[in-house]
Amino acid sequence: MKDKTENLVFDTYTLKTLYKLSNDGYFDTLWSTVSSGKEGLVISGRNKEWVAIKIYFMNTSEFNTMRKYIIGDRRFENIKQSKRDIILNWCKKEYRNLLEMYDLGMTPKPIAQRNNVLIMEFIGNNGVPAPSIKDKPPENPKEWYDAIINFIKDLYRKKGLVHGDLNEFNILNNGKPVVIDVSQAVPLDHPLARTMLERDITNINNYFKKLGVKVESDVKWSKQ
Amino acid sequence: MKDKTENLVFDTYTLKTLYKLSNDGYFDTLWSTVSSGKEGLVISGRNKEWVAIKIYFMNTSEFNTMRKYIIGDRRFENIKQSKRDIILNWCKKEYRNLLEMYDLGMTPKPIAQRNNVLIMEFIGNNGVPAPSIKDKPPENPKEWYDAIINFIKDLYRKKGLVHGDLNEFNILNNGKPVVIDVSQAVPLDHPLARTMLERDITNINNYFKKLGVKVESDVKWSKQ
Repeated sequence: MKDKTENLVFDTYTLKTLYKLSNDGYFDTLWSTVSSGKEGLVISGRNKEWVAIKIYFMNTSEFNTMRKYIIGDRRFENIKQSKRDIILNWCKKEYRNLLEMYDLGMTPKPIAQRNNVLIMEFIGNNGVPAPSIKDKPPENPKEWYDAIINFIKDLYRKKGLVHGDLNEFNILNNGKPVVIDVSQAVPLDHPLARTMLERDITNINNYFKKLGVKVESDVKWSKQ
Repeated sequence: MKDKTENLVFDTYTLKTLYKLSNDGYFDTLWSTVSSGKEGLVISGRNKEWVAIKIYFMNTSEFNTMRKYIIGDRRFENIKQSKRDIILNWCKKEYRNLLEMYDLGMTPKPIAQRNNVLIMEFIGNNGVPAPSIKDKPPENPKEWYDAIINFIKDLYRKKGLVHGDLNEFNILNNGKPVVIDVSQAVPLDHPLARTMLERDITNINNYFKKLGVKVESDVKWSKQ
C-alpha cells in the first residue's frame, strides 16, 4: 500500500449521516476526495451519475468565521449559538443558497442536505473534477467576465443575495463558469452585505484585468 | 479548499459497518488515510487512543489473489466462492492471523473485526504512522535480522503459520520491528506454505544482505 496522509475527520455522527444518505439512494459509493480544507471536504460519489458530497467537519476551527456570516442572516435568526448548531445551520445555509441561486444557471444543482452533509451536482467529467479558473483560465475572458458580472447582478437584483467569496478559486472552468462555495452568501440586509459585494467585484475585476479584460469601474457598479 | 485525489471507495455497506463500529465505541473519529492500495486502505482513527482501521474494498480487483490464499486454508474450508464471501472471509482471515500471531510480540494487537473492516493497534506516535524499514532502515540491522528470523521460526514452529508476504514494505520501524499485512498467512498444510516460507526468507535475506548482515543460508534454514 502507498503511504498517504489526508485528514478525513469523520466522526460517528458524520458516518451515520453518510450511511443514511447512501442508504436513501443518493449515492452507491463514496469515491474519492475532490478537495479538502479546514472547514470540511468534498468527496465524489457515484450513483447512476456522479455527485459531489460536501462534508462539514463537526470540529472545524472555522466556526468563528461561520458565526460571523450566519449571525445577521434573517433566514437563520432563531438558531442556537452552540458550535454544533452553527455548523449544522451553516450546511443548511449552503443548501438554501444553492436552491435560491440554481435558476440563474451558474451554480451546481443542489440534490440533498442532511445534518453536516450536502449533496450536489458533480462539476466535471467521469468523476474528474473541473479545474478552477485559477488553474485553467477561460479562453474567452471577456465573455466570462460578462457572465460572472451578470451573475453578481442577477443574484443581487433577482435573489437579493451576495455571494461574498467570489474569486478565481471558487469559479470552476467546466467549459462555462460554475460558481461554488456559496455557503457564506447572505441577503442584502445582512450588515456585511455591502462589504462582501464590493470585495466580490474587486476580486473578479482584479482577476480579469490580469487577463486583459477592460473591467467596469468598481465604484460606479457597486453603487447601483 | 485544496485539490486532492484519492480513492476511498466506501460503499453503503462499508459506511454502515464503519458507522456501527464507531457507534460501538471502537473509534470516535475516522481521522486520515495512512496507506492505500488496490485491495483497500488503512485509516487512522481516534478514541482515547489511536487505532488503525483497515478497510477492504468490496469491489477490489485483488479478489483472485485472495482466492488463491484462502482456498486450501483449512480454517476457511466451508466458505462460499462468491467475490463477496471471499473478501469478507479475507478480512476475517487477517483478524484470525493477528490473533494467532499476537503473543509472539511482533504484530499489531487485533482489536475488532466486522464485515470488511478490521481494527487494530495503531503503530506510530500521536497519529503519525511508523515508516516501513524500506523508508527507514534499522540502526542495528543484525539485531533486527535475528528478531525477524526468530519471528518466522516461532510463527512456523509454535503457531504452524507462514506469513507469506514478508518484505521491507511490510515491516514497520517503530523503534522495534512490527510486521503488518498478515492477511495472506496460511497454516503449514496449505499447498503454498512451503513456497511462501521460502519466499519470505529470500526477501528478508536479500534486504538484510544489502545492509551488510551475514545472513543464514536460505536453503539450510528452510529445510529445517
